Amino acid sequence: MSTKKDLEDERKKASFNVQEMTYLLDGGKQKSEEKQKFKDLVHKEKAFSKRDIIFLGRSDRYKRALERSQILAETVNKMKLSDEERTIMFEEVDEDLPLTTHYYLFVPTLENQCSEKQAKKWVPAARACKIIGCYAQTELGHGSNVRGLETTATYDPKTQEFVIHSPTTTSVKWWVGGLGKTSNVCVVFAQLILDGKNQGLYSFFVPLRSLEDHSKLPGIEFIGDIGPKFGFNAMDNGCVKFNQCRIPRTNMLARFAKVNKKGQLIQRSGVSSRVNYGTMVLMRANFVATAGVTLAKACTIATRYSAVRRQFNNSQNSHQEVQVIDYQTQQHRIFPLIAASYALYFVAGTMNEMYNDMMDELKNGKDVNVMNQKLALVHAISSGLKSLSTNMTSDGIEECRKCCGGHGYSQMSGLPYLYATFVHRNTAEGDNMILTQQVARYLFKSFKSQASTGQENKINKCNVSCEDDWVQNKEHYVSAYKHRVLRLVKENHNKPFDEILIDIAQLSRAHGMCVMVESFVKNCNHQGPIGVVLQKLCNLFALHHLEQDAAHYLEDGYMSGQQLQWIRNSVRKLLLELRPDAVALVDAFNFSDHYLNSALGKYDGDVYQALFDWIKEEPLNKSDVVDGYSQHLKPLIHSKL
Amino acid sequence: MSTKKDLEDERKKASFNVQEMTYLLDGGKQKSEEKQKFKDLVHKEKAFSKRDIIFLGRSDRYKRALERSQILAETVNKMKLSDEERTIMFEEVDEDLPLTTHYYLFVPTLENQCSEKQAKKWVPAARACKIIGCYAQTELGHGSNVRGLETTATYDPKTQEFVIHSPTTTSVKWWVGGLGKTSNVCVVFAQLILDGKNQGLYSFFVPLRSLEDHSKLPGIEFIGDIGPKFGFNAMDNGCVKFNQCRIPRTNMLARFAKVNKKGQLIQRSGVSSRVNYGTMVLMRANFVATAGVTLAKACTIATRYSAVRRQFNNSQNSHQEVQVIDYQTQQHRIFPLIAASYALYFVAGTMNEMYNDMMDELKNGKDVNVMNQKLALVHAISSGLKSLSTNMTSDGIEECRKCCGGHGYSQMSGLPYLYATFVHRNTAEGDNMILTQQVARYLFKSFKSQASTGQENKINKCNVSCEDDWVQNKEHYVSAYKHRVLRLVKENHNKPFDEILIDIAQLSRAHGMCVMVESFVKNCNHQGPIGVVLQKLCNLFALHHLEQDAAHYLEDGYMSGQQLQWIRNSVRKLLLELRPDAVALVDAFNFSDHYLNSALGKYDGDVYQALFDWIKEEPLNKSDVVDGYSQHLKPLIHSKL
Repeated sequence: MSTKKDLEDERKKASFNVQEMTYLLDGGKQKSEEKQKFKDLVHKEKAFSKRDIIFLGRSDRYKRALERSQILAETVNKMKLSDEERTIMFEEVDEDLPLTTHYYLFVPTLENQCSEKQAKKWVPAARACKIIGCYAQTELGHGSNVRGLETTATYDPKTQEFVIHSPTTTSVKWWVGGLGKTSNVCVVFAQLILDGKNQGLYSFFVPLRSLEDHSKLPGIEFIGDIGPKFGFNAMDNGCVKFNQCRIPRTNMLARFAKVNKKGQLIQRSGVSSRVNYGTMVLMRANFVATAGVTLAKACTIATRYSAVRRQFNNSQNSHQEVQVIDYQTQQHRIFPLIAASYALYFVAGTMNEMYNDMMDELKNGKDVNVMNQKLALVHAISSGLKSLSTNMTSDGIEECRKCCGGHGYSQMSGLPYLYATFVHRNTAEGDNMILTQQVARYLFKSFKSQASTGQENKINKCNVSCEDDWVQNKEHYVSAYKHRVLRLVKENHNKPFDEILIDIAQLSRAHGMCVMVESFVKNCNHQGPIGVVLQKLCNLFALHHLEQDAAHYLEDGYMSGQQLQWIRNSVRKLLLELRPDAVALVDAFNFSDHYLNSALGKYDGDVYQALFDWIKEEPLNKSDVVDGYSQHLKPLIHSKL
Repeated sequence: MSTKKDLEDERKKASFNVQEMTYLLDGGKQKSEEKQKFKDLVHKEKAFSKRDIIFLGRSDRYKRALERSQILAETVNKMKLSDEERTIMFEEVDEDLPLTTHYYLFVPTLENQCSEKQAKKWVPAARACKIIGCYAQTELGHGSNVRGLETTATYDPKTQEFVIHSPTTTSVKWWVGGLGKTSNVCVVFAQLILDGKNQGLYSFFVPLRSLEDHSKLPGIEFIGDIGPKFGFNAMDNGCVKFNQCRIPRTNMLARFAKVNKKGQLIQRSGVSSRVNYGTMVLMRANFVATAGVTLAKACTIATRYSAVRRQFNNSQNSHQEVQVIDYQTQQHRIFPLIAASYALYFVAGTMNEMYNDMMDELKNGKDVNVMNQKLALVHAISSGLKSLSTNMTSDGIEECRKCCGGHGYSQMSGLPYLYATFVHRNTAEGDNMILTQQVARYLFKSFKSQASTGQENKINKCNVSCEDDWVQNKEHYVSAYKHRVLRLVKENHNKPFDEILIDIAQLSRAHGMCVMVESFVKNCNHQGPIGVVLQKLCNLFALHHLEQDAAHYLEDGYMSGQQLQWIRNSVRKLLLELRPDAVALVDAFNFSDHYLNSALGKYDGDVYQALFDWIKEEPLNKSDVVDGYSQHLKPLIHSKL
């Protein structure tokens, strides 16, 4: 039987309408159709093909990425795409390009932090890519601790200029996306020095390369790419060492603060930090969404391949080997990850709503306390979810890859690329471990204020009384998740922070899981078959993770060994119940073959032919006798020894 | 303060003699000195430098690897190195080369499976690299289930030849190391067809390429490289499609079976499978050893970098930021992995002893039953440990990488390379998930036979009565590990295999952990400071993993919540106690800077300068204005829009 037939058969088994599920995940039919429009646009353009990127060396990868960037930018300009449309198009192109940070970090920074006058001068040029920019914060020796940055911007009242300078090797700006070879300007985050006194960190607009011929400008001692990374190699993350680089006084981004001619700092206090927090929240919400999509891609590949890969023949009645998706362990590894992908889609939606709600409050709210409270809540949740979701997806991609056996190790599976590209997200935009501290600080603080008003958790025993209880009443697991958070808060809120960093990491994870489970529960209330399968996924997600962290519920007697055993049984039942829907559940993500770029994840299931065809394009296979044979092999083979 | 000074200070804190520990890990002073000899040899040879491999594209990587292979092979021949010496030298070169499988798979296969006559003809030529070979077992559609292989070897009595043939796309030999572009011969594992009847799988010596000019021979429809992989890209894993490829009858490897002129199969039964098992055990034992060394490398990089990386200033008395190794979470992530590296070194030694003991029995033993029992035991343990150790190391490398923050994502950290190269070991030589079944089968069987003789476990409660009990009496944790294995065996041994695959995976892990902990306990009985620090490491390893899997001990009431809390407290104490020895413990692995190939893991701690120097060699930085600027960037920047 052919592998194509296997997938056809799987699709016949689906209990629900796949397209309807796609609309739900996309946020409505209209959104799905709009996405489709850009998908078609991207697929038509040959330069966007990802088929050969697995064969390209770094310099060729970068050059190809420049070509794609150019086509994208020209399309954005020509079709006058809105920011939302541009985002959809970038997502469909699905590669981190040298212009990505320009559009998503540099332009928004200008828009948020420029004075009106500055914005008029720079924003239209940046939007049209007549200037191409990046955002330089981290330094070779400084990442998470922003206050430790060493780059200085010293005001020289004689010439009315700032002097941007890198005093040490550790102060070299490093990791800056798009800086290496692409950008001609840069927003630099530096310690402002006025009259010998450090005033703290501010942003400056610094030209780097000539707009005429792209050569580096005076005051730039070194500028270049920081070398190959695990993934993300189409992007020229770069570094720059300044040597007394002079810029006009008016190049300090002046929406929230400026330096006057005499060298005095004039500030609009308070607002700036709230806007910064807002931007951070948005970034982190995007990370959650991307985590969902990326894990969904990995699941799509692993599920489809597991449905066509056959191994071992357990029955004497059949000549066929068993589809590996029918093994309990394979289901136990993949299905909870499908459920997690759905959970991430939903919680990303929840996160978005919270962000919009918060921005509303910031713009229209009257009470600064309410504003600050909302900001603190949303910031804590987004920090915790960023950390949880990116960990979940990193681990999940690798689990999917390992589920594909040997072929998962091939770049043609698409999975190594997915992993290597994604995992920078564990450390970028707030290291996952450090973020957990923000969650704990918030939870401890709000516990203390609630404790003073006499609020307490009432339940301290899980009251599940039979196996089916777990799936019939979602309140049981929601309560368990809540209980764990509260217990960890109670146990730790009065201890010295340094001594409980391990517990804090667990608390943050516990809280994030709670948010995810509650969001999933809210999102599976649909009529008909869609509702039924979503309920199952929700149950699987919640119960699987209860099982994984079971010690947390057993140790204080909240849950009994018997209740845990019921969870295990329920999880195993759910795996079997979800089995016929597995392929349909990943089909619903609606990823194109272009987007997955995986021989194993092909929609039609013709995986082996796809592998065999693809390797014909491997450069080593272009000649029969390989380059190097006569220098290095022939002397051995023809030796007289 | 300089980062160099940081490491100097760390080294002063060590409680034990580092060189003494190195000798212990290497298996004696003499072995350490022998290793050093080959280290020096490798470091002297410029072609062995690994500094530029992060910049090379696939084809250049392969060609460079050919050059290294040639130098290695010529050194082996010239210096008349023994197999052990060659192995040390290969390890110091530390790259998977096109000739690796030739030496480690092809030559031993010939030695084990050839008749004396065949061995005389082929082995010396193979050892001298006058023929270069590989071992072709897996096929595009067939991996773990060897019986499902489709390649046929049909005997043609008219010409007294075997016809090797690939009837389908799924039957194409795939993943074969060294086959893609390097080998000129191959041992092919194929279904033997005699007079239309399938006789099962046998091995055949099949020429692939001309010894004269390396061009492919008739009967080879396609031969080539299978394309880029996650890592391991200096190796040309390849594929071959046979089209009625004819070889002489005498090319069937004939030590255990042969086909006579008339086409009759003549077998020496029984022996072959025992020899095969022996080879498999050895392979898996090597995987365990490699897992130890690889995890140790990752720990060395992460520990040294964590000692020089400083982030956040928590004290008002100091201008300096805190060494990140002083954060509890960082210690909690890294130190148990250092302990695991030591555990893996020791258990690899245990494994080796068991292997030698078994081979002794196979060669000199009289009783076939004893032989088979020993084989079954060692095979089960090696399967379980291969699975456990490679999982532990894969996860551990990534944890170390993430502990290095942003810079861990750079190829110059050495960690992405380490991970991408290592992780094929989770699926190679027996998929880790499938191997767990072998362990369970063995344990169930021996439980049943022991149960019939009345043997039973006596302890069913952990009797730790205070916190210090856990570290003062190792019997407590050894008993806990044993208890878990026995409980899982008891609960599952009578259930249908298909329905307990998840439990089986846990059982195999539980058993492997038990073997590792017992081996560690045995290996830390040393006098003086070395003994003290090893005891601490052993305690940390055992207790950390008890904490991780705590649910397994809580759910049946074996352990109480209080006892678990004492474990947590003990682990945290151990982290603080081991803190001053952290750098010394990784120094003891005695890896050279060449071997680590990591800017972050440099012995002298000068990490930032190393990063800044290394990127000057990035090809993208060879020119000021990058290739692609005038085609793709200039049109945007100079546009009139």
